[in-house]
Amino acid sequence: MKRSFGSDNHSGVHPQILEAIEVANTDFVPAYGEDPYTQEAEALFRQEFGVDVNVFFSFNGTGANVLCLKALTQSYNSIICADTAHIHVDECGAPEFFTGCKVIAISTPNGKLTPDLVKRELKDFGFQHHAQPKVISISQATEFGTLYTPAEISALATLAHQYDMYLHVDGSRLANASASTGISFKTYITDTGVDALSFGGTKNGMLLGEAVVLLRPELAQNFLYIRKQAMQLFSKSRFIAAQYIAYLKNGLWKETASHANKMAAYLTSLLKNVPEVVVTHQVECNAVFAVIPRAVCQMLLEKHLFYVWDEEICQVRWMCSFTTTKEDIDLFISDLKSLLNQNNI
Amino acid sequence: MKRSFGSDNHSGVHPQILEAIEVANTDFVPAYGEDPYTQEAEALFRQEFGVDVNVFFSFNGTGANVLCLKALTQSYNSIICADTAHIHVDECGAPEFFTGCKVIAISTPNGKLTPDLVKRELKDFGFQHHAQPKVISISQATEFGTLYTPAEISALATLAHQYDMYLHVDGSRLANASASTGISFKTYITDTGVDALSFGGTKNGMLLGEAVVLLRPELAQNFLYIRKQAMQLFSKSRFIAAQYIAYLKNGLWKETASHANKMAAYLTSLLKNVPEVVVTHQVECNAVFAVIPRAVCQMLLEKHLFYVWDEEICQVRWMCSFTTTKEDIDLFISDLKSLLNQNNI
Amino acid sequence: MKRSFGSDNHSGVHPQILEAIEVANTDFVPAYGEDPYTQEAEALFRQEFGVDVNVFFSFNGTGANVLCLKALTQSYNSIICADTAHIHVDECGAPEFFTGCKVIAISTPNGKLTPDLVKRELKDFGFQHHAQPKVISISQATEFGTLYTPAEISALATLAHQYDMYLHVDGSRLANASASTGISFKTYITDTGVDALSFGGTKNGMLLGEAVVLLRPELAQNFLYIRKQAMQLFSKSRFIAAQYIAYLKNGLWKETASHANKMAAYLTSLLKNVPEVVVTHQVECNAVFAVIPRAVCQMLLEKHLFYVWDEEICQVRWMCSFTTTKEDIDLFISDLKSLLNQNNI
Amino acid sequence: MKRSFGSDNHSGVHPQILEAIEVANTDFVPAYGEDPYTQEAEALFRQEFGVDVNVFFSFNGTGANVLCLKALTQSYNSIICADTAHIHVDECGAPEFFTGCKVIAISTPNGKLTPDLVKRELKDFGFQHHAQPKVISISQATEFGTLYTPAEISALATLAHQYDMYLHVDGSRLANASASTGISFKTYITDTGVDALSFGGTKNGMLLGEAVVLLRPELAQNFLYIRKQAMQLFSKSRFIAAQYIAYLKNGLWKETASHANKMAAYLTSLLKNVPEVVVTHQVECNAVFAVIPRAVCQMLLEKHLFYVWDEEICQVRWMCSFTTTKEDIDLFISDLKSLLNQNNI
Repeated sequence: MKRSFGSDNHSGVHPQILEAIEVANTDFVPAYGEDPYTQEAEALFRQEFGVDVNVFFSFNGTGANVLCLKALTQSYNSIICADTAHIHVDECGAPEFFTGCKVIAISTPNGKLTPDLVKRELKDFGFQHHAQPKVISISQATEFGTLYTPAEISALATLAHQYDMYLHVDGSRLANASASTGISFKTYITDTGVDALSFGGTKNGMLLGEAVVLLRPELAQNFLYIRKQAMQLFSKSRFIAAQYIAYLKNGLWKETASHANKMAAYLTSLLKNVPEVVVTHQVECNAVFAVIPRAVCQMLLEKHLFYVWDEEICQVRWMCSFTTTKEDIDLFISDLKSLLNQNNI
Repeated sequence: MKRSFGSDNHSGVHPQILEAIEVANTDFVPAYGEDPYTQEAEALFRQEFGVDVNVFFSFNGTGANVLCLKALTQSYNSIICADTAHIHVDECGAPEFFTGCKVIAISTPNGKLTPDLVKRELKDFGFQHHAQPKVISISQATEFGTLYTPAEISALATLAHQYDMYLHVDGSRLANASASTGISFKTYITDTGVDALSFGGTKNGMLLGEAVVLLRPELAQNFLYIRKQAMQLFSKSRFIAAQYIAYLKNGLWKETASHANKMAAYLTSLLKNVPEVVVTHQVECNAVFAVIPRAVCQMLLEKHLFYVWDEEICQVRWMCSFTTTKEDIDLFISDLKSLLNQNNI
Repeated sequence: MKRSFGSDNHSGVHPQILEAIEVANTDFVPAYGEDPYTQEAEALFRQEFGVDVNVFFSFNGTGANVLCLKALTQSYNSIICADTAHIHVDECGAPEFFTGCKVIAISTPNGKLTPDLVKRELKDFGFQHHAQPKVISISQATEFGTLYTPAEISALATLAHQYDMYLHVDGSRLANASASTGISFKTYITDTGVDALSFGGTKNGMLLGEAVVLLRPELAQNFLYIRKQAMQLFSKSRFIAAQYIAYLKNGLWKETASHANKMAAYLTSLLKNVPEVVVTHQVECNAVFAVIPRAVCQMLLEKHLFYVWDEEICQVRWMCSFTTTKEDIDLFISDLKSLLNQNNI
Repeated sequence: MKRSFGSDNHSGVHPQILEAIEVANTDFVPAYGEDPYTQEAEALFRQEFGVDVNVFFSFNGTGANVLCLKALTQSYNSIICADTAHIHVDECGAPEFFTGCKVIAISTPNGKLTPDLVKRELKDFGFQHHAQPKVISISQATEFGTLYTPAEISALATLAHQYDMYLHVDGSRLANASASTGISFKTYITDTGVDALSFGGTKNGMLLGEAVVLLRPELAQNFLYIRKQAMQLFSKSRFIAAQYIAYLKNGLWKETASHANKMAAYLTSLLKNVPEVVVTHQVECNAVFAVIPRAVCQMLLEKHLFYVWDEEICQVRWMCSFTTTKEDIDLFISDLKSLLNQNNI
């Protein structure tokens, strides 16, 4: 099978995660989250994010995002995000459908919102004809693999709260961000004033499972019903909890995310010797975006799996994961160079 | 930990299922269902249900049910079911929320709809003030553990089609039905004229995963978008597919379901010697419903996990699973008898 | 054109209402409710219902009902009503669609809920699998033309509030109730503890226009957005306000409703001499329900417009309106008697 | 009361419209559209738009737009419009809420979409993660008072149909467009290939009432249920039909719209002598957009009612209606000039 730079979810499951599932596979336990594994996992989340957070597991990232947004909004609200945001681009309208809200997507140079970009949309409060802005949603890391600093997140949280709005973070790759900078989840999320977080697991070595982390107790009050009605309640929920225990307890998340990040850095370093390829976004995590000569793109796709991000300018995305190897990258660069040579580029 | 008759999803995962997950955990494969495991699993479903079916995996049973109902309806339709149906009682309004439809719940003696019961609600077609009936939804096995015969299902399908409606089957325990009667999935579903089926896995030994089986090609046409928007698309989808391969390929489903059914039969046989307990529904699968003396109920609950179904008459449900043992049941009966004795009942 | 006992909305508009529209048709006024007519009408509502109510106009009765229900619920709630309720039977699933809630319809002998009937459904609070009961919705007058006493309404409000629920009243014919009993709107609604009221106008002589009366200030807080998003905001809103001014100011509502009620009473009195016709519900307002010999039903329908309510038992509804005349009724009774004679009944 | 350039719905009702309501106010007629007035109005629409159209009345413009969009989409679709479109800016998220669809808003210089602008969003067909584009929605006249030519509309219809999409026209001011250019409704709508039209009445002299005109028979098939569930079905529907009869029969629509257009032209002509005011969009109908000196804006607002469109550049909108007079405009210009003088601008 082809090695893949297509997505970090093209990889399988980390062996320690599978082992944790096996270990949890004994005896009867109550379903739907009322089991000891869930309790232990929740305690670990409170260690990471602070004692006041409430944690709820969901099946997938779209689920976690939409659950957060539903908990933060009424149907007449609007949600502001970058126009590259997963909630805008990759969820087939689930946020609109499930919340009823308008999603307002802002063009950004690097996938990152700023207070200035957001402020333009903070208008018409109290005007009955307009959907009322209620959530700023950002991704950390962004879909371009770029990172917000804690100060940048904090500035957006402050802005949101000034307008009686919430800040949501899509953290499907928060582990990659923290592993990259050494900045803790708490510093990125709790201390900056984030209100709700979708915390990823699947893209970084888990079988499946994301966590909704709510940082204000009142948001958690009726969340169980929101999750159930959104079809995101897992009967054998212990098997997500057990994975998160393995993931958080001994820093497995850091190990896997660091590896993916390092592979992206390694790929980037090799690309410096390929002048025909222009890396278009700062590589701060496990994603490399580059514009490549159109002539070789299709041929490269026949040998390696990855996505063309912007057809028009032949921008591609190469994603590294916890299972990407140096050999994968060496082979990829070698194939790339050969193709460039063959095509006299 | 207490042994549980609470639900068949209080059990863990069958070892062969876990093994299948491990085996699938090699190398990169494309995400979101475009992998060889999914292809193989789909082929197995076509073997079971006929070459014309389309299969889509979902995370959980509520998801599978709601996806089916969404594929069958427009928002101004109504859905007719028994008032014991999972879609009516146990999905926190997800069917209404996600489809916009009215759910019309009919009281039944045994969890089973009949053409006569349904016909009363087949009215006001073409009358713009009334939600238009579009789906009859039944459960096989029912939530009371009772079974429809193929002829009974066929009669409901015929009725549905006469009115330009669809028949949906919630088959979260279809395996238990087939294992109990020896009647094939195809005979129960395809040959009777069912239009859409939610096919369970989780309650019968899988880690997680249900399948939407669509029996008319036109229903499948836009189903991918429905699933994605319903937050039921699994990125590492191979891991549901791999489970279904193990589940279907060598008849594992039959082995696990038969065991659960036999345990329920064994429990029922022992209850014949406990005259204070009245079994209220025919035990045709893995569920035993009984009215028990109120005086012992709470004490029994302290020793064994199960649900009180109808507080008013002290009706309880004892559910057997693929991991229930004869020893579990012997101990349970022994505890039950002791409590009855102690209370001079 | 045939005279109609079909519905009170088969009548046209009261001349004083039309005149009020004409009078308001001068000059420019701001749209969307920011006009002096709306202010004056709101003041009249506060006179009727108390100073703390908030009033919002909507286009039609379904709109008013659904707006109320949306203001009272979150999507994971359920709404309890009689199975004859307009919100259950005659709104094509709008309540489910627009609120996402489950509607639980209870069978009643006379269209009236009682605490005992409701209590059976007040269960599973806090259980995440079940839609959480949040609203009891009743109709005053009911769809059978029967009336609640203030004490009966109060008992339902008390029950609702005990469970942290709300009581909604569909008052599309509240004017008929008050006109019939002489009990004021305030006594029926404000003093009993009702939380939200749909107050009718269209059925009782207005051109169009219903009013949402919210009796708790917090419910009004974001109501403007709910109404706008529900497509129930009228640009030239002064023309509903002006109608309500005419309707409320000099007791026009009482005059029109009393007339309709009296006509129903007159019809009922004449029916006492027609033993073949059995009046099935107490005639307390402007509706007469009766079981009639099937043999004459179709022939009567050819001469007069009315609805067959229950095909099975040949139960019909005769509705009187503010334009129904004694002559209409005399002719109707005469035709009825002739048909009975001709058919030797 | 202040004369208003705020909106064309700040005006009242044309006397001929009121008269038509009065004339229709005789006798009983069936409710909900089954009356002779509705039949006559429908026939007039078929005269204007062609024999194959289906017409349904709604209460307001938001209602008409959302009903159209619902008839054209499934929840996983997206709708493409200008970022000035009423459906995007002024409906409080009703399109998203009611259809479940994503609304994609495109920046335009003049409120008009072009095939080139739209094409950028016509991507990812068949890709399950993305909402599937299904509707192009334009406004004729646009919210800036600019007009599409029939050729421009036709080009967008062709583009839509190439992609198996629909073209919707928000025609709340289609009368103004036709009155301005002399191009018939049929030429603008039917002959260009438009699939669904919201046809306005309220802004051009009616009391209330918009019409959904569906140009493909299959779209009308289940439209009655969509309208009812959307709370847009009027019981005394004859009173919208009667207005449309008066509006269409003797060209009243043209008289009122022409007058409004002429007033805008007159205002524009006078502004040529006010160099401090820059008209920003071509005045093709009844709207005048201009940038004015910020210093006088507030003072002008104290004397005349109008809206500031873009606070940042002090762009305002002056809307003329069928009741705007030359005297209104002369007074307005005189006040404007005085204020400019007083402020030495």
